[in-house]
Amino acid sequence: MQLNEKIRALNDYPVEGVVFRDITTLLKEPEGFKEAVDALAKLSDVEVDVVIGIEARGFIVGAPLAYLKGAGFVPVRKPGKLPAETLSREYALEYGTDCLEIHKDAILPGQKVLIVDDLLATGGTAKAVCAMVEELGGDVAGLHFLIELDALKGRDVLKDYDVQAVLHY
Amino acid sequence: MQLNEKIRALNDYPVEGVVFRDITTLLKEPEGFKEAVDALAKLSDVEVDVVIGIEARGFIVGAPLAYLKGAGFVPVRKPGKLPAETLSREYALEYGTDCLEIHKDAILPGQKVLIVDDLLATGGTAKAVCAMVEELGGDVAGLHFLIELDALKGRDVLKDYDVQAVLHY
Repeated sequence: MQLNEKIRALNDYPVEGVVFRDITTLLKEPEGFKEAVDALAKLSDVEVDVVIGIEARGFIVGAPLAYLKGAGFVPVRKPGKLPAETLSREYALEYGTDCLEIHKDAILPGQKVLIVDDLLATGGTAKAVCAMVEELGGDVAGLHFLIELDALKGRDVLKDYDVQAVLHY
Repeated sequence: MQLNEKIRALNDYPVEGVVFRDITTLLKEPEGFKEAVDALAKLSDVEVDVVIGIEARGFIVGAPLAYLKGAGFVPVRKPGKLPAETLSREYALEYGTDCLEIHKDAILPGQKVLIVDDLLATGGTAKAVCAMVEELGGDVAGLHFLIELDALKGRDVLKDYDVQAVLHY
């Protein structure tokens, strides 16, 4: 199966001029979902203690990857969604800022952490998550994405880390 | 491992008098995450075409379960998050209403669907998802939850369906 043939391109979403890569058409097919997760697992054989998934699509690809790697799963969430004490991080978007949170006890010092999301665009979100992991004393073992939008050069922002993606646009 | 010993109880969250069952303490441990997913998979051996996860914690438990069952994964999301044409459903909360969406092309007529979430409380959310699946022509093969809050009788609201949970409070 060509995974990219199963990904739907939506023009002018969420704003005019943008082509949105909709992975739901890939994930809803049994074979597509399995192959996507397996391809993520094959990106590296790094052993990690914890896989972080970034809300919300990062949960869909990160959780099965954590299971396959025999790792724990930690969600990084939008503000106000995590019930215990959190560490927050604001980060810049093209216009304005956004914010993510992680439980302060989610990562133990020295733990190896793999960060997973569906899509690497400008890298701002992923870099904020790296900073939170490091503030908690964790070691970012890598960042895996299902899709990388090469033209947005998110990889440059993350040049200190091992960044890998299954599909490139 | 006793899964329930790994779940953190938070008093007076999100509102006074409520004991919130925080599964993040279970999921972050490699053994805990694996055992939780395996326990969900053992709830039934029903074969399904699609597993639906309800945003957002339902993605964390539903996606690995879809992988293990060899099924596709379909997200049911909060309004405005899905990029293509959706079906929406409002449902009653204790105070006010909430709304969920599914892509209209996510379920094909006749497909067997397993609905998964972390928690069964009053059952309002799950019932709304059942209604959406059926409106799309799908067949609800069951509903699996990691936790069921027995006192809230969500099971009664879902009496037409096969409802199973790993842990009961």
